[in-house]
Amino acid sequence: MGEVDFIHTINPSSRCDGGDERSSMYSFVNALRMSGGDGDNSYSTNSLLQKKVLSKAKPVLVKNTKGMMINLNFPNYIKVADLGCATGENTFLTMAEIVNTINVLCQQCNQKPPEIDCCLNDLPDNDFNTTFKFVPFFKRLCFVSGVPGSFYSRLFPRKSLHFVHSSYSLHWLSKVPKGLEKNSSSVYITTSSPPNAYKAYLNQFQSDFKSFLEMRSEEMVSNGRMVLTFIGRKTLDDPLHRDCCHFWTLLSTSLRDLVYEGLVSASKVDSFNIPFYDPSKEEVMEMIRNEGSFEINDLEIHGFELGLSNHDEDYMLHSQISKAGQREANCIRAVSESMLVADFGVDIMDTLFKKFAYHVSQHASCTNKTTVTLVVSLIRK
Amino acid sequence: MGEVDFIHTINPSSRCDGGDERSSMYSFVNALRMSGGDGDNSYSTNSLLQKKVLSKAKPVLVKNTKGMMINLNFPNYIKVADLGCATGENTFLTMAEIVNTINVLCQQCNQKPPEIDCCLNDLPDNDFNTTFKFVPFFKRLCFVSGVPGSFYSRLFPRKSLHFVHSSYSLHWLSKVPKGLEKNSSSVYITTSSPPNAYKAYLNQFQSDFKSFLEMRSEEMVSNGRMVLTFIGRKTLDDPLHRDCCHFWTLLSTSLRDLVYEGLVSASKVDSFNIPFYDPSKEEVMEMIRNEGSFEINDLEIHGFELGLSNHDEDYMLHSQISKAGQREANCIRAVSESMLVADFGVDIMDTLFKKFAYHVSQHASCTNKTTVTLVVSLIRK
Repeated sequence: MGEVDFIHTINPSSRCDGGDERSSMYSFVNALRMSGGDGDNSYSTNSLLQKKVLSKAKPVLVKNTKGMMINLNFPNYIKVADLGCATGENTFLTMAEIVNTINVLCQQCNQKPPEIDCCLNDLPDNDFNTTFKFVPFFKRLCFVSGVPGSFYSRLFPRKSLHFVHSSYSLHWLSKVPKGLEKNSSSVYITTSSPPNAYKAYLNQFQSDFKSFLEMRSEEMVSNGRMVLTFIGRKTLDDPLHRDCCHFWTLLSTSLRDLVYEGLVSASKVDSFNIPFYDPSKEEVMEMIRNEGSFEINDLEIHGFELGLSNHDEDYMLHSQISKAGQREANCIRAVSESMLVADFGVDIMDTLFKKFAYHVSQHASCTNKTTVTLVVSLIRK
Repeated sequence: MGEVDFIHTINPSSRCDGGDERSSMYSFVNALRMSGGDGDNSYSTNSLLQKKVLSKAKPVLVKNTKGMMINLNFPNYIKVADLGCATGENTFLTMAEIVNTINVLCQQCNQKPPEIDCCLNDLPDNDFNTTFKFVPFFKRLCFVSGVPGSFYSRLFPRKSLHFVHSSYSLHWLSKVPKGLEKNSSSVYITTSSPPNAYKAYLNQFQSDFKSFLEMRSEEMVSNGRMVLTFIGRKTLDDPLHRDCCHFWTLLSTSLRDLVYEGLVSASKVDSFNIPFYDPSKEEVMEMIRNEGSFEINDLEIHGFELGLSNHDEDYMLHSQISKAGQREANCIRAVSESMLVADFGVDIMDTLFKKFAYHVSQHASCTNKTTVTLVVSLIRK
């Protein structure tokens, strides 16, 4: 990989006057980490989705990076944090976007470019070694550090951060909610879950997201900005509603297949739940307003296309698995394998995700998707 | 490992009035890194020597930490860097010492303790993952980050560091010096080396140490302090003199044994050199004075006891290898194996370090040691 990969062109027509564009700690899920290394099943190899998400969030990211620089009157030092950076080069793509936006803006406005500190955060079990392999390519642009720890706790000194980015991380809860039914064979909320399952997940999300906002509120300078991207759901009257091909629903189906085949015990599936929540736009807005330290600058809803590409309908040779199905299986495997292995062991993983790819392929024509990607930008008051 | 490991008691009789106690770029040796993980041959398991060194440097470390706090008039934020932190828990022992010294001093002086940023630096190939496993135990005391990169380059923003520590790292050069004889069967300078070998090593050390001082000079605040510990040699008239049981001399002997046994080719040994230099106290002082940004506050010379313990003379069962010899072999293996494997392959390592342990054991009674540990403290003017 050459250095040129990290340099993107920024629209040179952007204006400098910019205007004011503003329109406890938790119990730890030790097994929650992205698959390390750079092998076939690693997160690093299977994070094309995350790359796509970055490209969707890019206009909001660029606009808010510029807005931050202008509102702060071109400071000579900028500290940026990427929270939940995972492993691999994607995290550097975002950082390169931010750094490049700052440098091009400074050039256009005849301002001296600032020294930039890029802090890459994830849980201590994250594979930082693989991420750090890419640092030498990136280092001439800014200073790079890794910050191990949960973003639901304090990570940085008081009033030290100017810009915070987090992509596809905030839908992960700090722990599996308490009070879930013990005999559910679904790993997450489905349309047929009891209402208290929804309440338990929502409570945990509210508690975690509140912590996240409070911690960042302490760490960020006034007029600092955050761009957050995460999985959400379309607002419907029924908060339990999830589409039939929601990835966790299909994972539950795949696990039940293995129970049927005698490869996994039913009781293990019953007691396994994913520490995940896909909030609605309204739930997110309410939390931000209640916490009170941040103003909402942007809130966009984008489609959620896991594994989609131009050859979506192509089937893999001699199989009932579409290429898109296989890609979605790879994506979900990269983000969930470490948790699944902790409960079910490593031996069933290949079979499980073959089932999963099959079920995804069968749902290719579903059109009632409720899963979306939320892009939110916030300004520290 | 419990949290209590990281807390040490500090002499409570210390006074608060303190007084004024003051009395480009390189080519990279990719294979230079400490052995990762926590297995039998890892650096993490075999760094007892480094632990001993820390205990020797402790009085200077504590004195300069206090001096820094007092001279800077108890700032509310302190950024500390450990350069060449390697892997494992030792790096946290130093940080805990610094953090604890600051907190106890603040308590004694009725000052609010500062927020402390602890930055752990080493090369990008260092095993940061193993180091980060210890972070959760340490995190309530300060903020922790990993900074991958060479300390012979810029690592931190301008005027951002208050305190820098580096233990047993600065004797590693950024690369093997140019212009060494191709047909030397020694991996480093010996008493019988040609004089230009000494000059080549000294030139490389001077160039690297100058870079180190210049980079830190840019990164540190005025009155910030550095405590540096590294391997040096006693001043003698002959700059080529090294004792007969210098660890690199014994490594050369061990490699020649393998050549004799047909396990390694002579030409490979001839072309292998260690990127290392053990400067004299005078060479170090001259470099610091010439660079000009730092004042020398302390310069101590300590003995160098690799592998020594109370049962030094004990021999291992059915062998000619003493326990001390085995320990020294483990230490040297942990710091040099990655470089040796790159040139000689992994297969000969066990045999090589068995030879090495044997040779160390044979030299147990030598008394003409010239290798020392230098402890230097500097104040940024």
